[in-house]
Amino acid sequence: MYRPEIKVIDCTVRDGGLMNKWHFDDKFVRNVYLALCEARVDYMEIGYLSSESAFSRSEVGPWRFCGEADLQRVLLGEEKRIKLSAMADIGRIEQEDILPKSESSLDMIRIACYVHQVDAAIALAHHCQDKGYETTINLMAVSTVGPRDLNEALDDLGKSRVPVIYLVDSFGAFYSEDIEVLTKQYMERLPGKTIGIHAHNNQQLAFANTITSIISGINFLDATLYGIGRGAGNCPLELLISFLKNPKFKVRPLIKVIEEDILPWREKIDWGYFIPYMVTGVMNQHPRTAIAHMESDRKDKVLEFYDQTTSALEG
Amino acid sequence: MYRPEIKVIDCTVRDGGLMNKWHFDDKFVRNVYLALCEARVDYMEIGYLSSESAFSRSEVGPWRFCGEADLQRVLLGEEKRIKLSAMADIGRIEQEDILPKSESSLDMIRIACYVHQVDAAIALAHHCQDKGYETTINLMAVSTVGPRDLNEALDDLGKSRVPVIYLVDSFGAFYSEDIEVLTKQYMERLPGKTIGIHAHNNQQLAFANTITSIISGINFLDATLYGIGRGAGNCPLELLISFLKNPKFKVRPLIKVIEEDILPWREKIDWGYFIPYMVTGVMNQHPRTAIAHMESDRKDKVLEFYDQTTSALEG
Repeated sequence: MYRPEIKVIDCTVRDGGLMNKWHFDDKFVRNVYLALCEARVDYMEIGYLSSESAFSRSEVGPWRFCGEADLQRVLLGEEKRIKLSAMADIGRIEQEDILPKSESSLDMIRIACYVHQVDAAIALAHHCQDKGYETTINLMAVSTVGPRDLNEALDDLGKSRVPVIYLVDSFGAFYSEDIEVLTKQYMERLPGKTIGIHAHNNQQLAFANTITSIISGINFLDATLYGIGRGAGNCPLELLISFLKNPKFKVRPLIKVIEEDILPWREKIDWGYFIPYMVTGVMNQHPRTAIAHMESDRKDKVLEFYDQTTSALEG
Repeated sequence: MYRPEIKVIDCTVRDGGLMNKWHFDDKFVRNVYLALCEARVDYMEIGYLSSESAFSRSEVGPWRFCGEADLQRVLLGEEKRIKLSAMADIGRIEQEDILPKSESSLDMIRIACYVHQVDAAIALAHHCQDKGYETTINLMAVSTVGPRDLNEALDDLGKSRVPVIYLVDSFGAFYSEDIEVLTKQYMERLPGKTIGIHAHNNQQLAFANTITSIISGINFLDATLYGIGRGAGNCPLELLISFLKNPKFKVRPLIKVIEEDILPWREKIDWGYFIPYMVTGVMNQHPRTAIAHMESDRKDKVLEFYDQTTSALEG
């Protein structure tokens, strides 16, 4: 599949950081950055943009903040070779803490929101655009949103100046048929806008659903190295780049950084296909209960987790 | 997706056995059998059917042979609650070593063959049918077969009495679009026959490709518990059963047997998504080089494997 409009956004540090509170050291982040430059990936999402008052630096790593000084420790004053993105959560960043684009190494700010936060997200995105940034709005957990609420949110987004709207399968609950139907709905309700996809791998469908979304017309594609990310993780970047036929992309730098920097994290954190994540995906639930189970000393007691999760539906 | 014609074939012992030379003990095989009975899976493929002269029992476990005495140690003389299948390789089983159906606990014999072995496969399948068995022919490695050869093989299979023909993605090389095109081709060339799918997970597409095949009209579906199988493994049975909407199927017994009998094997053998398997899948190659790499002490040297595999294409 080669379509010049397609852009690939690596979310390794941002989404992977959800599993280790963004405690990636500078060398790790720089190595990922250099690999993505060599692979010619379009954007690196280097973390979340948060006000310093929203979290404590003694608890979470620098990529929860993405201050300009944090970014400079990775860029080392060199000219940037790919675009940098950061994600902002509603309520965790004050508008006055966002630097004008001219003083920042960030190119794009992506606003993550739930359906009831769409108005706040649009306001924040417009603020970022007015400061000079590219923006997207990533509408999360749409697998739990009813059709009327979703259409209303899409209509509001359609009237905004935000150029890119994301379809986010937060719970890894969608099959490819869902992606086809939703992509059609997004494209109809959001004429003239670019649509993005962010998939989770609870049912081993993140890559497949990303392919389906490409075929359906989606052009902004999120992925992470070796699929690292919250819970079951994301669409693996190395698979996506191998699939895309744009000759500019290179796979080898991705394999190299996976060997040197990602595989060591496999010893410390469990992302990927595990039964608890599969269960929350099939049941269309937030993965937090599965993550808590995986972090407990009963991680292999998968039947217990299944029984707890399914019995909560009864009575 | 609910379609009464759909049959699910568990290949845990047969395909998983490719990773441990079928050294599953009787308790393991019985537990898998009981779980599949409770889950109401249609068939259990319990191993390969081989002549005793083809292998040595001091080297490979009993499920490389599937002698009637082996099967009885699992069934314990009880009435069977699901159908049993065994796979036969051309050249590894003499016709005279196949019992008449009336003396065997097997219900189905599946003949695996490459495209140049189709005539031999049809002869063996007809022999098995004449002895009273259900049969299938599983045409392997079609991702490496040219269109003229494939059409010729399909036409020969179409003229046979064999009722079920399998589309086999031996190398985990196919994307869903390939599955759609091939399913259409199989159905056109094999009117009146049932088509099956056996997918491998090198690119995390085994489950997705199985879903695509169902939507395209395929009715015999192979899967294994937790995806255990050669190299990257297979379509995970627990995902497939969760997807199929036939209310007869139960997921809980599968989760239970995964916890008790499959997870312990994760400590001993590496199946699933690993970069070497991804590389052979993307490159449409047999996984044997990747398996050898994964069994070596350089398993995490994935860049070395990538370089060796891709440089073999040059010069």
